[in-house]
Amino acid sequence: MTDSPGAAAAGDAGQRLTKRERLVAAAHQLVYQQGIERTTIADIAQAADVPVGNVYYYFKAKDEIIAAVIDAHVKQVESVIASISQRYRTPKSRLKALVDALAGQADLVARYGCPNGTLCAEQDKRVSAADPSAAQLMRIPIDWAAEQFRAMGRPDAADLAIDLIAAYQGGAQLTQALGDPGLLVRQGQRIERWIDSLDQQQD
Amino acid sequence: MTDSPGAAAAGDAGQRLTKRERLVAAAHQLVYQQGIERTTIADIAQAADVPVGNVYYYFKAKDEIIAAVIDAHVKQVESVIASISQRYRTPKSRLKALVDALAGQADLVARYGCPNGTLCAEQDKRVSAADPSAAQLMRIPIDWAAEQFRAMGRPDAADLAIDLIAAYQGGAQLTQALGDPGLLVRQGQRIERWIDSLDQQQD
Repeated sequence: MTDSPGAAAAGDAGQRLTKRERLVAAAHQLVYQQGIERTTIADIAQAADVPVGNVYYYFKAKDEIIAAVIDAHVKQVESVIASISQRYRTPKSRLKALVDALAGQADLVARYGCPNGTLCAEQDKRVSAADPSAAQLMRIPIDWAAEQFRAMGRPDAADLAIDLIAAYQGGAQLTQALGDPGLLVRQGQRIERWIDSLDQQQD
Repeated sequence: MTDSPGAAAAGDAGQRLTKRERLVAAAHQLVYQQGIERTTIADIAQAADVPVGNVYYYFKAKDEIIAAVIDAHVKQVESVIASISQRYRTPKSRLKALVDALAGQADLVARYGCPNGTLCAEQDKRVSAADPSAAQLMRIPIDWAAEQFRAMGRPDAADLAIDLIAAYQGGAQLTQALGDPGLLVRQGQRIERWIDSLDQQQD
């Protein structure tokens, strides 16, 4: 985004955009590793190499940075799903590609949990309710998976989509709790076998 | 524990035990509702009706209170499982009773997530690794479920136990993220149908 013609022509505005993006990227990583509450504005400023006093030029409060981090996560989920939809043609190969992509992060998940799942869980506890932006992190893959199951002719597509995303999220949760990346790899293989088995079991 | 003969005879020591228990119970509830990081020692002292200066008489630091909270969760899990094992005789009815007990908390889960799952996720992010005490919260039900599946004659008992607990934990995570208690109720029903179907599918 910073190297678009518009940004290049904008001069100072272009530079401000770059610093803002650096702050969001730093917050994104720190929040994943330490959680929202432990991550201070000073931590974020230091990791982004932005003077701490400048942060308030871009964000009025920490909650605004967190909203930008959630937004960055949503864009990442949309981009992974768009890329899978483009590269794979059949619904089964698409669903399995999503499982592959998720299980491919097993080492990170064993240390810090699912980036999207743990972000939702912490944010929802902070606001004592389901945060509608964070909810998109689950809603988008569920809706996309349901679309694939419908394309496979399954009348129970909506339930299967919940089963699929729940199996991954639960697997990620156990992987983090037990610190065992192999658990997520094996869970991914079982989910893929389950996807393969769905033709036969039209229940 | 406070009304055991030993505690009654201890006088002041018995009272100290009661205050300590009040602090742990208050921390237990606040941590579930707000998360570990947001819960301060002052919050805990106030909720337990104990002068804040007294807290350090029982716990050297907040981390010691959190360890006691995790321990209380572990005892709760052990007690639920012991009670199910005693009340139900067949492995299938035991597994379904566990799913019932978990899905019965749907309203709370929609608001604050699974008490054990969210505690593990936050604690593991705080210590940047799987906390061995928190891991027990997942290990105990997994091992118990594997025992039930073995009693059903399933050679894949260990995998099925992971599938079962992951399906619940993932369902709880989606329930919290989407703020929808009905999701956990329906997920519980699907898990119970899956348990019922396991006799036929010896794969």
